[in-house]
Amino acid sequence: MKPRNSLNFSGGPGALPESVLRQVQKAILEVPEVGLSILGISHRSDWFASVITELENNIRTLLGVSDNYHVLFLQGGATQQFSMVPMTLLRGKTHAADYLHTGYWSGKAIPEAKREGPVNVAWSGADSGFNRLPGDDELAFSADAPYIHYISNETVEGLQFHRVLGRDDVPRVCDMSSDFLSRPCEAERYSLIYAHAQKNIGPAGVTVVLVRDELLNDANADLPGFLNYRSHIQAHSNFNTPPVFAIYVVLLVSRWLMNEIGGVASMAEINHSKAELLYRMLDNSDGFYRGRAAVRDRSLMNVVFNLPSPEMERRFLSDALEAGFSGLAGHRAIGGIRASIYNALTLSAVEQLAGFMEDFRRAHKA
Amino acid sequence: MKPRNSLNFSGGPGALPESVLRQVQKAILEVPEVGLSILGISHRSDWFASVITELENNIRTLLGVSDNYHVLFLQGGATQQFSMVPMTLLRGKTHAADYLHTGYWSGKAIPEAKREGPVNVAWSGADSGFNRLPGDDELAFSADAPYIHYISNETVEGLQFHRVLGRDDVPRVCDMSSDFLSRPCEAERYSLIYAHAQKNIGPAGVTVVLVRDELLNDANADLPGFLNYRSHIQAHSNFNTPPVFAIYVVLLVSRWLMNEIGGVASMAEINHSKAELLYRMLDNSDGFYRGRAAVRDRSLMNVVFNLPSPEMERRFLSDALEAGFSGLAGHRAIGGIRASIYNALTLSAVEQLAGFMEDFRRAHKA
Repeated sequence: MKPRNSLNFSGGPGALPESVLRQVQKAILEVPEVGLSILGISHRSDWFASVITELENNIRTLLGVSDNYHVLFLQGGATQQFSMVPMTLLRGKTHAADYLHTGYWSGKAIPEAKREGPVNVAWSGADSGFNRLPGDDELAFSADAPYIHYISNETVEGLQFHRVLGRDDVPRVCDMSSDFLSRPCEAERYSLIYAHAQKNIGPAGVTVVLVRDELLNDANADLPGFLNYRSHIQAHSNFNTPPVFAIYVVLLVSRWLMNEIGGVASMAEINHSKAELLYRMLDNSDGFYRGRAAVRDRSLMNVVFNLPSPEMERRFLSDALEAGFSGLAGHRAIGGIRASIYNALTLSAVEQLAGFMEDFRRAHKA
Repeated sequence: MKPRNSLNFSGGPGALPESVLRQVQKAILEVPEVGLSILGISHRSDWFASVITELENNIRTLLGVSDNYHVLFLQGGATQQFSMVPMTLLRGKTHAADYLHTGYWSGKAIPEAKREGPVNVAWSGADSGFNRLPGDDELAFSADAPYIHYISNETVEGLQFHRVLGRDDVPRVCDMSSDFLSRPCEAERYSLIYAHAQKNIGPAGVTVVLVRDELLNDANADLPGFLNYRSHIQAHSNFNTPPVFAIYVVLLVSRWLMNEIGGVASMAEINHSKAELLYRMLDNSDGFYRGRAAVRDRSLMNVVFNLPSPEMERRFLSDALEAGFSGLAGHRAIGGIRASIYNALTLSAVEQLAGFMEDFRRAHKA
C-alpha cells in the first residue's frame, strides 16, 4: 500500500490540511484573484501586499495580540533565529541571558547564543537523558538577564511545557516552531516568539516571528539588513524578495484555522483528543509501548516511544508503512518511534494509528 | 482580458515553464515516486537526498564544471550572499576587494561588503546614470584584492556583461541572479557564483551557490552555522531544514533545460532571438520606444525602455494588461517599461508582445 497524505505522521515538514492542498494546487496554475501562477507573481504587487497584511492580522487575531506586536515572515528557519535573537539582544551585553537546555533543539540554540554574548544555562536535562522538563522549584531566573530563552516543545524527545516560564520583568523569547498555533499560548506574555512553518502552519522555507515593539528600543541594530528585525518590520517582510509561495500557503492555513477549525482553542481541544488516544494506547500496553517523556511533560505534538527491541521497532515501521502510515521513525539522533500529530493530522487518522498499534501489540506481545 | 501565465513579463518572481507548472501541480497532492504531497515530505528522506544529488549534478552538467565546485541551495536570496561573501572572504583582510557599481543591485551589495572589510569601487556608473557598463580600458583590478565582485546582469537598468571580467590570478565572485543558466557563462573561470532562483530557475525562496573548493581553504569559518558555506557543503544543503518545495521546482526546471531545451547553449540561442525581436522594435520605432542601455551592454534578460511621456507609459501598461500582458512596469526605482524575458518566456510570447508594441506605436505616434 502506498503512504497516504492523510496518514503522514512526519516530524516535519509535516502534513497540511487537505482543503489547503486543493487550493494550493489551483494556485500553481492560477491564483483566482490574480489570474497568474503563484510562482510567478511579483512580491511588489498590490495583491501580495494584501496577502501579507491579511496574514499579519490573522496571526494577531489567532493569538489574541494587538499591533504592538510586529509579525514577520523571514527565511532561514529557527536556526537563523538561534543567531538573530542573540545578535540583537545579547551582543555587547555584560549580563548573561538565561537559556534552558531541554533537548536536541535547545542544544542547538545555546552554542549560537554563546557566540554573541554571555549565556547562563538555567537548567539542563542532559543528566536525565532529556526525558523530563524542569519544575518551577528547579528554576531560578536572574532579574538582570537581557532575556530568557526556551523552546516550548522539543520535537525530538516529545517534551512540551504546559505553562509560561520566566518572570514578568525579564523579556521572554520562545521558540514555538513545533507547537505554534496548536493551542492558546498567552502570547502577550512573550516579547519575541518565533516558529518555522513546517510543523503546523505551512511548508519549509518561511519562519514567523512576533516581536513586541518595545523589545527593540535599545536593541543592537548594527547588523546586515537581512539579520536586522527593524529592516523587516519597516518593509512589512518585503525587505528583500520573500518566499512568496510559502507565505501564501501559511495564509491559507491561517484561514483554515479561523474558518474551518474555529481558532486555536478549538484546535487545542482536537489536539488534546488526538494525543490522549495515543498516550492511552501507551499506558494500556502493559509496557509494550514505552513512552519516553515524563507523564507531566508529554508533548501534544510528538508522541515518542519505544518498543521492546530495535528489531520490533523496525518491524513496526515497515508494517505501518505497508498499512499507509508514513513518517513514524524517531529522529535520527535518538531512534525509536515518533508519531507527530500536528494540527493538520485529523482525529480520524490518529484513531487509525491507534487501531494499528493495538493490532500490532496483540500480534507481537510476548 | 485576464493576464496570462504565458504572457507574464514580470521582473521576478518570473514565469516558469508550463510543463514544469503541470508537474508541480501534481506534486502538491502527490510526488509520483513517493506518494505524498511535496509539502509534507521529510528533508531527511532518501528521496529528498536523491533530489539534491540529481540537482547538484544537473547544475554542474549544465554549466560544464566538475565536482571541485560545490553546489549549494540556500535561503535568504542574493541579499544574504551580499553579506556571506564578505563575511567569508573579506572580514579581517587588509587588502580591499574590488567591486563594480553598475546599477541598483550592485549598489545594494557594496554597503554590505563595507560592513565586513575594505572595499575598492573599481568602477561606478553613477555619473552616467547607469545606462552603460565599463569597457576593459576603464578597469584596473588589483592583484592584491581578496576577490573581485560584480553582477553579470543588472535587472533594473537592463545592463548585461557579455564577457568575463577580472584577472585570472584573483578569485572572481559573480552575482548571476538574473541570468543564471540563461547562456553559457564560462563558469570554471569563477570561484563563486550565486543566483537566487526567482528569475530563470524557480520560485522565490532558494538561492543556488557554486563555490570552488580551494576558495575556502583559508576562508573565515568563525561564523554561525547557517552563514558558513562549509556547514552547508558538509550537509549537502541539509544543514537545517531547506526549502524542500522550492528546491524540487528547481530540479524540475533543470530537467526541462536539459531535456526539453537541450542545455544552456540552446537556451542562449532562444534568448538571443527573443531579445533581438524587442530591441529591433525599439531601434525601428523612430524614437517612440527609447532603450535605456547602451547598445553594447543591452541585457538579453531585461529590455528596459521609455515612451515619449509618463502618461503614454501608463497608457501602454494598462493597454498591455488589457491584452493579457503583465509585469511590464519598470522597477519602482526608475519607472518606465521593463520586459523581462527570462528562460521560461517563449519566443511566441515575445512575438506577441512585439506585435502589441508595433500596434501601440502606430496608434500613438505623434
